[in-house]
Amino acid sequence: MTTTFHSHNPATGSTNPGLFRAAPPDEVDTACLLAEEAFRWMIGRRNTDRAALLDAMAANILALGEELLTTAGAETGLAVPRLQGERDRTVFTLRALGQLVREGRWVRAEIDRADPARKPLPKPDLRRMLRPLGPVAVFGASNFPLAYSTAGGDTASALAAGCPVVVKGHPSHPATSQMVAEAVISAVRDTNFHHGTFQHLPAGGDRELAIGQELVTHPAIKAVGFTGSFRGGTALARLAASRPEPIPVFAEMGSINPIFILPGALAAEAESIAEKIIGAVTNSNGQMCTCPGLVFIVRGDGANLFLDTLAARAAASPAQPMLSARVRAGFLERLHEVSQVPGVEQAARGQPAEGSGTSQPVVVLRASLSALLRFPTLREECFGPSTIVVECDEELDLLKGADAVPGSLVGAIFAAHTDRAGALAQILAGKVGRLVFNGVTTGVEVSAAMVHGGPWPATNQQQSTAVGAMAVERWCRPVCWQNAPPELFPEELRG
Amino acid sequence: MTTTFHSHNPATGSTNPGLFRAAPPDEVDTACLLAEEAFRWMIGRRNTDRAALLDAMAANILALGEELLTTAGAETGLAVPRLQGERDRTVFTLRALGQLVREGRWVRAEIDRADPARKPLPKPDLRRMLRPLGPVAVFGASNFPLAYSTAGGDTASALAAGCPVVVKGHPSHPATSQMVAEAVISAVRDTNFHHGTFQHLPAGGDRELAIGQELVTHPAIKAVGFTGSFRGGTALARLAASRPEPIPVFAEMGSINPIFILPGALAAEAESIAEKIIGAVTNSNGQMCTCPGLVFIVRGDGANLFLDTLAARAAASPAQPMLSARVRAGFLERLHEVSQVPGVEQAARGQPAEGSGTSQPVVVLRASLSALLRFPTLREECFGPSTIVVECDEELDLLKGADAVPGSLVGAIFAAHTDRAGALAQILAGKVGRLVFNGVTTGVEVSAAMVHGGPWPATNQQQSTAVGAMAVERWCRPVCWQNAPPELFPEELRG
Repeated sequence: MTTTFHSHNPATGSTNPGLFRAAPPDEVDTACLLAEEAFRWMIGRRNTDRAALLDAMAANILALGEELLTTAGAETGLAVPRLQGERDRTVFTLRALGQLVREGRWVRAEIDRADPARKPLPKPDLRRMLRPLGPVAVFGASNFPLAYSTAGGDTASALAAGCPVVVKGHPSHPATSQMVAEAVISAVRDTNFHHGTFQHLPAGGDRELAIGQELVTHPAIKAVGFTGSFRGGTALARLAASRPEPIPVFAEMGSINPIFILPGALAAEAESIAEKIIGAVTNSNGQMCTCPGLVFIVRGDGANLFLDTLAARAAASPAQPMLSARVRAGFLERLHEVSQVPGVEQAARGQPAEGSGTSQPVVVLRASLSALLRFPTLREECFGPSTIVVECDEELDLLKGADAVPGSLVGAIFAAHTDRAGALAQILAGKVGRLVFNGVTTGVEVSAAMVHGGPWPATNQQQSTAVGAMAVERWCRPVCWQNAPPELFPEELRG
Repeated sequence: MTTTFHSHNPATGSTNPGLFRAAPPDEVDTACLLAEEAFRWMIGRRNTDRAALLDAMAANILALGEELLTTAGAETGLAVPRLQGERDRTVFTLRALGQLVREGRWVRAEIDRADPARKPLPKPDLRRMLRPLGPVAVFGASNFPLAYSTAGGDTASALAAGCPVVVKGHPSHPATSQMVAEAVISAVRDTNFHHGTFQHLPAGGDRELAIGQELVTHPAIKAVGFTGSFRGGTALARLAASRPEPIPVFAEMGSINPIFILPGALAAEAESIAEKIIGAVTNSNGQMCTCPGLVFIVRGDGANLFLDTLAARAAASPAQPMLSARVRAGFLERLHEVSQVPGVEQAARGQPAEGSGTSQPVVVLRASLSALLRFPTLREECFGPSTIVVECDEELDLLKGADAVPGSLVGAIFAAHTDRAGALAQILAGKVGRLVFNGVTTGVEVSAAMVHGGPWPATNQQQSTAVGAMAVERWCRPVCWQNAPPELFPEELRG
């Protein structure tokens, strides 16, 4: 069994410096038990202490400077400006959750005061708030090595809730993961938290899958955060459900993110909409969970201009590296499946790839609505730089298309003032976590009202969000204290 | 295959009048499709309309008068005053949820306003609220033929959320279920709701299990509410998870509901605590989901007086009917299992049963802490009129006991001013949905701060509650509208 591993530079195909050692089973076990100990320790700590921890994490990650960005670039093929934006988003999330925790309203404290005179029975004093579940295992994503990995949204929100975290390091970016983990461990130390509050297990080689399974089935682990493929997420969820004590898995998986362009908008803005869509499809070379995989248009005014602009912009786009050889192989396999469907045509292809890395040009496909309705493979995520333009004969067909799309993280409608978007918006609101008007699906604001979630198969827990203030609630459950003496309430309930 | 069935009077063992016909497969299918149609119809309706529906349901159920209570009594063996309390609770819940819906805050509307001047990118307008999931299948409980059955908490909260309901009628109280269903159907008609808003499928005979399976696997059903046994709940949850599109099941299952008596309280109040506990154990003949199944005491002052009082009160308690022959058989089987454990002794037994019904006297058992820790069967629910007094040698043993108890709906601590309850309360808060001080576990207030839920195996969804305002959120998911034109917002987001 190979228990050591390297990372690779997707842009060049070469092996990065540094040899990593996958955590052996006893280290996984020890980490989970230590997290359990840390959980008991954390229960009594104040919200302000956790806010200080999150702030210290943010500061330490920022202090890693350029080296973090170049390391992540060498392991993911993502451009440094893109990674800088992602680093800043990670830091912003940590601070925003620190602020949320400091402010305290997130626990949803609710107090029903006693009424001893009530008939036929006195009314008790009831006080409810959210309470952390326990140690959380976090599985990061390859496409966001900072914002959805070691110290990303899952880790930040779990720590905000008061849950210790055990991270399974992502095998594709082990050096990045290690650097971030060390920054977090310093923050834990600097703010005098228990040393089991955050732990990082390097995972790769032949131990990769086993480490994940050991984490999810460990009795001390009480919840799991996962960002990645549909297959990976459903396998972990099934494993967690088969435990003697089942635990929740919050898995953000594959999403098709449809865009609908209404006739008025197409007639008025064909070129600018096409440009925005190509921008979204080529953003991070299509490796975004919010990449638009389907674009519905109606034949008529603007349709040809839209298709021509899309094709021209796609053709001019340079090939960019994919995250890894494995991700590229998966993309090419899916692209092949989709291209084989009768009635699917290639509308455009970007600049050819050069060199020995994983570079891959964008591909724009066209399909009829009837093909989309008939072949389910067209409605499944194709993770990478591609999108399918679905051509409809008439406006009502857009509603049929909307009825057919699977649950997604996000959907978008382009509509002019003359368009009637109500029925379409109604259907889509039942399919997505977020519904965007006159904009593309990419770009996820970190704010209170954000929902980054959605119905199956985009996630397995449509009742939660992975971004925004509500993300913290995933790691909690409500507890009610009845007629408790004041000194036994958590401080949030003393109000 | 037998598709007709009767109900039985548990108090007399006789068959009740009325022959019921189980819904055939095509009726199940039609009901689910109609519920889907009703869901689309309901989406556009106002909160105030749903409030009116809930109020009309309450009024119509009240108007059934004494006949409902005597019918339910004949089908459950529960006394009429108990059923009257339950009926009033049902009516109160419907009206309280109507008020909640009218008031509107339950949707958790959150608005982040746009900032077009923000750098480097403009901030979009984001508006989030809860949105109903779709048609809900409800499986009621035998022990609460009104409050947790046809128009009970699950049905009321699902309708409040905007989800149509298909009820699988409980086979033990079909006439009660039918009466309530007709009252609800009248309310649906009187308030001009779509006729698929509420539907009732009589279930029994050889079709009983199949109707449940058909409901849970129907593509139109988007969530399930279940109150009943651990076995039934886990089977439905497994079935729902294996669907092509998995759906959430909110199952309230078996719960042991431990009570801990600290030494100071035992020394000062042995008799009154013993009386309260016997009252809780014999309430509805122990057939309450909050019945205390374990009572922990420490040997010392008051312990003998407590045990003597408990035994005396138990011995004086008359036998009461159990809900059905099936429920009694299950109770006797569990009682036998538990009694076989080395070190378990019978401390008291109530008055013997008379007549040919399902009557069953209360049984009080005693066990050592070491037996409890060694034999898992002692920590599992024994649904019926029994409890186990666990005797500890010293106060610290109470913490060991608390560590060992499984997840429960509710736990209780009796503590005098001189007792130190902090460490025990901390452990128990991690085990229960509600923690009661100086009172028994039975008695569930319907109010905003109530939590009637808890960790596995008490429920399979510890992040929710079956009673109280948060119960409505089970049937919803958050949706975010980004840069939407005002006319396309739901009214709650126009603020």
